[in-house]
Order: sequence, then C-alpha cells, then structure tokens
Amino acid sequence: MNLPSHGANPSHLYKASGVDEPEKVLDFSVNTNPLGPPDWLKERWAGFLHTIEDYPDPTGQKAVAAIGEKFDIPYDRILLGNGAAEIIHFIARYAAGQKAVIVAPAFSEYEEACRAYHCPVEFVSVPPNNWHLPLDELAEKAKDAGVVFLCTPNNPTGQSFQEKDIVSLLEKTGDSNAMIVIDEAFYDFAGDNSLVKYVNAFPHLAVMHSMTKMYAVAGLRIGYVISSPGIISKLKNYQPHWNVNAIALQAAEAIARDEVHAGKTRALIDSERIRMKDKLEQLGFAVMPSSVNFYLMKEPLLADQKPLLHYLMERGIVLRHTENFRGLDGMWLRTAVKKEKDNNELLNALTEWRNKC
Amino acid sequence: MNLPSHGANPSHLYKASGVDEPEKVLDFSVNTNPLGPPDWLKERWAGFLHTIEDYPDPTGQKAVAAIGEKFDIPYDRILLGNGAAEIIHFIARYAAGQKAVIVAPAFSEYEEACRAYHCPVEFVSVPPNNWHLPLDELAEKAKDAGVVFLCTPNNPTGQSFQEKDIVSLLEKTGDSNAMIVIDEAFYDFAGDNSLVKYVNAFPHLAVMHSMTKMYAVAGLRIGYVISSPGIISKLKNYQPHWNVNAIALQAAEAIARDEVHAGKTRALIDSERIRMKDKLEQLGFAVMPSSVNFYLMKEPLLADQKPLLHYLMERGIVLRHTENFRGLDGMWLRTAVKKEKDNNELLNALTEWRNKC
Repeated sequence: MNLPSHGANPSHLYKASGVDEPEKVLDFSVNTNPLGPPDWLKERWAGFLHTIEDYPDPTGQKAVAAIGEKFDIPYDRILLGNGAAEIIHFIARYAAGQKAVIVAPAFSEYEEACRAYHCPVEFVSVPPNNWHLPLDELAEKAKDAGVVFLCTPNNPTGQSFQEKDIVSLLEKTGDSNAMIVIDEAFYDFAGDNSLVKYVNAFPHLAVMHSMTKMYAVAGLRIGYVISSPGIISKLKNYQPHWNVNAIALQAAEAIARDEVHAGKTRALIDSERIRMKDKLEQLGFAVMPSSVNFYLMKEPLLADQKPLLHYLMERGIVLRHTENFRGLDGMWLRTAVKKEKDNNELLNALTEWRNKC
Repeated sequence: MNLPSHGANPSHLYKASGVDEPEKVLDFSVNTNPLGPPDWLKERWAGFLHTIEDYPDPTGQKAVAAIGEKFDIPYDRILLGNGAAEIIHFIARYAAGQKAVIVAPAFSEYEEACRAYHCPVEFVSVPPNNWHLPLDELAEKAKDAGVVFLCTPNNPTGQSFQEKDIVSLLEKTGDSNAMIVIDEAFYDFAGDNSLVKYVNAFPHLAVMHSMTKMYAVAGLRIGYVISSPGIISKLKNYQPHWNVNAIALQAAEAIARDEVHAGKTRALIDSERIRMKDKLEQLGFAVMPSSVNFYLMKEPLLADQKPLLHYLMERGIVLRHTENFRGLDGMWLRTAVKKEKDNNELLNALTEWRNKC
C-alpha cells in the first residue's frame, strides 16, 4: 500500500505503514490553523442554514467584492474556486499540452493536474538547506513553458523565496508565453505581505490563495486566484456553473473582512515555532528555518526518517512523511506548529527517543 | 443585457427585462422541491459544524456506500461531483475534441462544457408536442461521436422518453465510441424508476443524478454519476482533490438513505400538477404533459410568450423563459409546480390576464 500523498489523513497512514492506530492520535501532519475556525464563524453557523436551498451566486459577487477590497483590486482580477485544488485544475486546463515547470519540493496536486491535461512536467529542485530561487534555470525553462508553479511560503519547507528574486523572475519571463503561478496558501502565516501587489505590473502573474489554512475551513472548500483580467476570463471558461457552494460563499465574504483571527494566530504560531526550534535543536534534532505554521525537522543520525516516524506513530503522534516530496524523499519530516500543550507532547516523545538512542 | 441562461435568478431577469422588481416575488422559474429540504436535514445542521475544519474525505466513501446500497451497485461505479455541473465538465473533458451530440431542448451546461473542451456540438431536436426519441437519427450521429447527452425526465419539457427507446439506443450504440450520458436529475419526481439498472448491461452508459432538485439543497452542490468502472476511473483523472465539500458529504449520505421526503413530495406534486393542468386548460392555456415538478405552458394566442412573461413579472410572478432552449425559443414558459397556495396565486394572475384579453 502506498503512503498517502497528502497529510491530515492519519488512519490511512497507520494502515499503509502497518502500525496499529492508538485510540488517541495527535495529528502534526495537518497544516491548518491549530486554533481552528474563528469563534464568530461558529456563532454564525445557524444563520447559514437558509442558504442551502437556493443555488449559490455563480459569480460569488459578495465574496469577490470583499476580497477585492482587502487587496484593493477590481473584481475582474479575481476568480473563486472550489478550494485552490480546483483553481490548479483550471490552470492546468489553460496550459493543456504545454510544458509545465514546477519548483520542487511542491504540493503534489500541481503535477497531478498538469498530467491530466497532458502537460509534460519539468522540475526545478531547491534544496531546503539552501533556499534560493534558481533564477537563471527557471527563466530558461520557462521560455517554452505554458505555466510555472511555485509555492511561497513553501509547502513543505516552510521557507519563503526572496521577493526581489520573484520580481526578477517575473521580469525575465515577461516575454514568454508562460503563466507564473505563485501559490500563497500560507502567506498570511508569514505576516501580511502578499505578492498580489504585483499583478498590475505583470499580466502573466497569477497568485493563488486559500482560506483553508489560516481559517481552518478545509471542509468548506474556498480558494481563489488573482491575476490579469485576460487570464481570469480564460480560466472562467473551465469553471463549472455554481462551483463554489453557498456556505463557502458566506464564509469567504466574512473571512476576507477578518483581521483579528489571523493576527492572534500569527502571535501564537511565531512564539511556539521559535520555542520548538530551540528545544528540538537542544535535543540534537536538525530543524529548518520557517516563517509559517510548520517546519522540516530530522534526526541527523538517520538518512531515512521512517524509524522516527513509526516510533512517534506508535505513541499516537503523526508527523508528515516527505517520501512523495521530490528533493526531500523521506529525509525530513514536516511538523505542524500546534498549541503549546500539543507541542509539549511532541517534545516529550522526542526526548524519550533521544534518551533511548 | 442578455436574459439569464438559468432559472432561479429572478433579480437578474427583472434587470435584463427592464421590468421593475416588486418587493415580493414568487419564483416559478426555480425547479427544486417546493417543500424545501427535509426537516431532518435542518435538525442535523448544528451537528455538521464540526466537519468544516477537516479536509473532506476525497473519496466520499460513506456517501458513495449509501448511494451504492440504494441502487445495489458497487462503489467503483459511482463518482461524486461538486454538483452535477462538475460531472458534466468531467465528461466533456473525457470527450475532449470529439463530437458531442445533444438531444434538445436541453440544459445549457452540456453545450457550454463541451465547447470549453473543443467538442464540436451537434443537436438532435425533439418537439415538445411529439416527445419521442429520434432513434435512427441519434444512432447515426452517435457513430463518430465521443459523447451523447440526453435528459429524461427532460428539463425543460418535463416529459420522459420511453424506456424501450433508451434501451434501443444503447443497443444500437454499443459498438460506437460514444458514451451515452443520461441526465436523470428529476427521475425521483417521476416515480422511483432509474435507468441505473442498465449500467451493468451497457458499459458505455453513464447516468447522472443530482440531489439538488428533490432535496432542495442547490447551495450544497451534490451530484453523482453511475457508469462502468472503466468510465468512472477515467473521469476520476479530471477530479480535483477534495471536490465535494464536507457538508455535502454528510447530507449526501443521509439523503441517499431517505425515502420519506421524496414520497411526500411526489404526492403533493402529482396532485398539484394535475390540478393546474386542468385549471389552465379551462382558462384556454396550452399545457404540455409532464411527469415531474414543472411543465411547459403557453398562451396559444401568442407566438412569443414575452408579453405574458412580463405581465406576470409585473405582478411578482416569475416563470422560466425558454429563449435559450433550442427548439422552444421563447414559444413556451416553463412553470414550476409549487405549493397549493402559490399555484393559486399563479392561477389568479392568469385568470386576470385571460379576462383582459
């Protein structure tokens, strides 16, 4: 049985690994907000019920308007999706048959969607311990590509590319045919600095956002892409009617107007991530820098981290394996930053592991 | 401004028609259950809240199992969609570049999706007053087609094709390359006889269902397709990950196990549809036969029904124009069967119209 290609599915991982699943599992393979959805969203839940009966507004006008205000951009630069996963499919359809370039390690959906639309896929790998955009290689490969996918802050490494390098890439690829897709699913964990501000200057730039991660609403499916009106209007051709459900539209509008939950979350995540890095390094683990709600770590005494992964699983703690992340290949474990109490349980288990070694 | 291409959007229609929208509007252009969602679904709403936080099961296993039990078919013959609209896109993608044949009048999404995937589209038209499947013409056109779309019971005519004709079509097209897609979005209004029972015998048959119409959950987005394992596995290639949201999965599982709401609805609809047909014919309107929750009617004194449509709109009653339904072209009005009190309001307005003529 193959290991699951996504995190946040502990039972599947236990089965695939042949490890007995304990009754209580702490899931560090998920990378959504450990505080969960905002309280105000839960309080409004009963009020959403009446929206299930009618077709959702196919243009999602109110949610689009709220997103437009947040970033100060007009509505014809915004397209909502049934999660960012659907947006990725629209983009792959747009680039159908053309070469796709993916900066790795990366979310596996880019490649899967591109292959469904017969895009030959080329990878540009970045090592997590030397996290710089390989500008010249990328610009060269983009020349005859239909699309370039890169994720910053990156999932799974947790690191951001330098903004000046992204701008250079956009400048160097301006004459090519390639859409440059920047997946910013985690941008709001790293502060509030989005590359959306460059969509005016670079019509071939498309910035993808998701409300899933910061607002812990993975079940609702809310993503969107911001780009030039030309690209948005082409992507709309592939959009099934009523693709964003009514509950997602209600939530998206309110989330786009929220600042408080994101601010509170960043404060918690930043302090816990710093604390964990210190403690883990004191215990002799290698920990990569991160600006978001997860980080890569490893036991430097092991090439393949599977023994550590299984050791923790037996104790009801699930980290994210990296076997299907090109360039990581199981040599790291992606670890969520959770609440203090949960992080301490991980620390305790790792202390135990260290004492046994 | 163009007339809206879908019903259930009265404000859009008022704007497009230049008619002032009154404060209270009775929408007969919608074709979902007039009783609304079942009470048990509303009662379970609070219990759905906890599902928003986690990613939905990407395989929708529990909902698929419930649908499989309902029709006594194995899970590998079932694919869930973000509404049937998404399923239509998967099918158009499957047939990309090949000829699509559409039995008209038909839901406009078949054509739109096919065009997005560069399928040349051919229509086979059936007149509403002689509702028979044009078997020979269809079989001939299907020979070099990638897909054939037909809807029975039909939207917008409300009439069903004869089962023996459908079976003949499946027999005649067995050697072709074409997938025969039967959209049964309204099958449960017409009794409980689905063509799903033929998917074993005909591997090129795909039957689409929606939970939107009978269960009045248009906002949640739940559709599915039942076909051969071969077709289902190909369609899955085009499915974005987590495409069915968590609330839809919860609702779908429960709806697949319900019989009561559908039975109660059919009893109401059948008696109200018969009553309305009698009354409208007594008033001198032409009314087509129907087995479902809507029917075609017209003022026989008018070729184009727009004056009647606008007359009713001014009185806060919205019927479904048929200008974008090939073969109807505005010569009929699609009218929902609603609750007795609402149907009476329509009768009163039409009596008034008749008295003025």
